[in-house]
Amino acid sequence: MSLINEHFLELNDSYLFSTIAGKVREYKSAHPERKVISLGIGDVTRPLPQACIEAMHKAVDEMGHAETFRGYGPEQGYEFLRKAIAEYDFAPRGVMLGTDEIFISDGAKSDCGNIGDILGAGCSVGMTDPVYPVYVDSNVMGGRGPRISYLPVNEANGFVPQLPQGHIDIIYLCYPNNPTGLVISREELKKWVDYARREKSLIIYDAAYEAYIRHDDIPHSIYEIEGAKECAIELRSYSKTAGFTGQRCGCTIVPKELTATSSDGRTVSLNRLWNRRQCTKFNGTPYVTQRAAEAIYSPEGREQVRSTIDYYMGNSDMMKGRLEALGYQVRGGEDAPYIWLKTPDGRGSWEFFDLLLEELSIVTTPGVGFGPSGEGFVRLTAFGRREDCEEAMERIAAWKR
Amino acid sequence: MSLINEHFLELNDSYLFSTIAGKVREYKSAHPERKVISLGIGDVTRPLPQACIEAMHKAVDEMGHAETFRGYGPEQGYEFLRKAIAEYDFAPRGVMLGTDEIFISDGAKSDCGNIGDILGAGCSVGMTDPVYPVYVDSNVMGGRGPRISYLPVNEANGFVPQLPQGHIDIIYLCYPNNPTGLVISREELKKWVDYARREKSLIIYDAAYEAYIRHDDIPHSIYEIEGAKECAIELRSYSKTAGFTGQRCGCTIVPKELTATSSDGRTVSLNRLWNRRQCTKFNGTPYVTQRAAEAIYSPEGREQVRSTIDYYMGNSDMMKGRLEALGYQVRGGEDAPYIWLKTPDGRGSWEFFDLLLEELSIVTTPGVGFGPSGEGFVRLTAFGRREDCEEAMERIAAWKR
Repeated sequence: MSLINEHFLELNDSYLFSTIAGKVREYKSAHPERKVISLGIGDVTRPLPQACIEAMHKAVDEMGHAETFRGYGPEQGYEFLRKAIAEYDFAPRGVMLGTDEIFISDGAKSDCGNIGDILGAGCSVGMTDPVYPVYVDSNVMGGRGPRISYLPVNEANGFVPQLPQGHIDIIYLCYPNNPTGLVISREELKKWVDYARREKSLIIYDAAYEAYIRHDDIPHSIYEIEGAKECAIELRSYSKTAGFTGQRCGCTIVPKELTATSSDGRTVSLNRLWNRRQCTKFNGTPYVTQRAAEAIYSPEGREQVRSTIDYYMGNSDMMKGRLEALGYQVRGGEDAPYIWLKTPDGRGSWEFFDLLLEELSIVTTPGVGFGPSGEGFVRLTAFGRREDCEEAMERIAAWKR
Repeated sequence: MSLINEHFLELNDSYLFSTIAGKVREYKSAHPERKVISLGIGDVTRPLPQACIEAMHKAVDEMGHAETFRGYGPEQGYEFLRKAIAEYDFAPRGVMLGTDEIFISDGAKSDCGNIGDILGAGCSVGMTDPVYPVYVDSNVMGGRGPRISYLPVNEANGFVPQLPQGHIDIIYLCYPNNPTGLVISREELKKWVDYARREKSLIIYDAAYEAYIRHDDIPHSIYEIEGAKECAIELRSYSKTAGFTGQRCGCTIVPKELTATSSDGRTVSLNRLWNRRQCTKFNGTPYVTQRAAEAIYSPEGREQVRSTIDYYMGNSDMMKGRLEALGYQVRGGEDAPYIWLKTPDGRGSWEFFDLLLEELSIVTTPGVGFGPSGEGFVRLTAFGRREDCEEAMERIAAWKR
């Protein structure tokens, strides 16, 4: 009998981004004179929208007076924010949600990591390869490591993951995708929903980047597909939408229709389980943060968010265009802030990462860090300052490799 | 094989405070003319200290400009806050901590719920009865429900929990105690540390209310006891200290000395496991919140916090004095914001709760809701407004029961 959860010992020793951070730190201390440009970790650089700033100042003032002070809020989030989400993010796409199907959190990473709490330790799990490492590691921690299967996303299948051959209990899908920057069509997504309904599987749909979708025909929410409420949980984030990476707010949708059958034949509501999980192990998102999130939906907030996203997608368009003109093979970057760059000359991901860092002082993310099918790719993010993205492209253009 | 974590089905159906909230809602809608005074849920009523408000305005402004904007922070928290905690909360008591032993979180409830992630599902767990329900429920969710044993705290043992007879892997201690408001002496705490070292057990020490300690000889941290770094994790909270219940910030101490042996004989650092858990399933506490927490340690902040705590403890002194003068038996409330009131006439906790609500429009928390040994008690909190606490005492004094 072990005091600790020994599944932690099955984890790879270091988290991808810590490894990169270590390499960059080392490089910077060896070359203090060089200007390092990061197209690596997916952190934003634009400030919070002014509407959020104003809402936060107002909320901070409220917290400073006994008459307007707010203590414990609802674990599920304030009604004002849950209503705004239902009204602005979902209703216009024909998805009608009750506010009690929306759970406000301190960000999609927490929910993505914690959602496993309500799922069986014996479940089989399917996820695409390459994949956001949190899906893998949180499932390993939960004891499901040996039952993870990977669905390759590569040149051979045209970067479209295929349905599993047999039954899988839990499927993670992330669209627009991190790391490839690719999207899923309505038809492809319908295949997954149909599979999950048929197999009584659960889809965990990570829509953290939905605000970057520019093509009209691409679904923003899995619930745009008929029947998805019976089989899917959706994760949403304000991190990239409105620059909340350091502000921490997101939400998780658990529809009332979503049920599972317990081993003794009872029908169990996943909404009820998640609510219980959150009421027990979470105490709500800061009031000030929720007011900031609410402000995103004001007319000014929406315009400011749009302008920030346009700025980043301008980076993406510029980098994609430049790289293609230089003969690089690039994917993604049209409805997502990530560009999936094929390494030239058959180089490995880490090899090309090292080369870009050593020779051009550019930080990327090695594709293989997201899974074996990412080998031979690096991920570039469009979250940098325009002038840095341009300088990075200048360096690549002038590169004698 | 079940899709869901069926341990959730072992949970009691409703969380104590939701049940109370339901009863109060019902009472208020039946008696809209009556003024209900809550001495129930432990939520604060005083505004945030002005030093925190100022720090937050400043931090909000930083978030509004690209030059000073902060994106992802360290999952473990910013160094400025971790340093302040080591310097002001621990060093003055002779406890020297490295900043990498301090993990900033969105509150002690989250950490208390999530700490089980790094612990073995097969562990036995000991906790006092009465107990903060999160300890119970989070362990039931983690599959340890059948291995929980309760250490009674009652009149028979003078409200001092006794060491377990045999071996227990994980022990929860909360001092100053929620719900009884009682504290632990250095000598008693040493017995637990010695037990844990001898048995290679882990103590999870919840010090959420340490700021309320007024007697010099009472330990504020378990690490004031020799050897505790080898066997204890400590949880800290700003919720009650500085009114952060709606602001969400706390920290967890996991000393480097704290290790466990894996079943194949490896020595595993719990600091490393918790760090990995937090890096995977958490993305840090909001920058603005951490600046607010830092401000608590400024000279103005410390004075303002002191004044708020004095205000609440003034409530406690007043209520305790009035109740004793009326012949009630009360405990706690000297080094904690909770008073543990013995129900008169041998009434049950819920019966007395209902009576106080129905006849006096006063909300308390039934002791039995915290465990069977809480039967025959109700908990009163000192977090109300002074005039409300006084009015509640007037109502009790005038009560013809």
